[in-house]
Amino acid sequence: MKVLVNISLKAGVLDSQGKAVHHALDALKFDGVNDVRVGKQIVLQLDETDASSAKEQVTQMCESLLANTVIEDYEIEIVS
Amino acid sequence: MKVLVNISLKAGVLDSQGKAVHHALDALKFDGVNDVRVGKQIVLQLDETDASSAKEQVTQMCESLLANTVIEDYEIEIVS
Repeated sequence: MKVLVNISLKAGVLDSQGKAVHHALDALKFDGVNDVRVGKQIVLQLDETDASSAKEQVTQMCESLLANTVIEDYEIEIVS
Repeated sequence: MKVLVNISLKAGVLDSQGKAVHHALDALKFDGVNDVRVGKQIVLQLDETDASSAKEQVTQMCESLLANTVIEDYEIEIVS
């Protein structure tokens, strides 16, 4: 089972990487960009075949390792 | 218009960050993990309101700045 985990900085947390990308896009004359946020996408391949228990497992992985829940939000998406 | 760009290493390119996460998950006794790949997710807020021209703009951004197309693939998703 393939599971996507999208990890993004919480709203209000300074995203210096996003700011740098925004700046670079401006320098390259890409106008009309209002905001850029850079996050992580983790793709997991699990043995688990049951979607709900896979989601539960991945939630535990996020809470204990993948995300820093003080400053980051995560979303779990079961792909197949 | 909100646009997501998912950037991942091409298949076959060594993902050392993914390997490290996989190792850490093993150490934390999360069994049944076959593979871990770590990529980037960039969230752009654009002034553009037309989906197809937004996609075109973001494709150019990916080709010229956001992705290293030698080793990375990118996917563009128009959210709203």
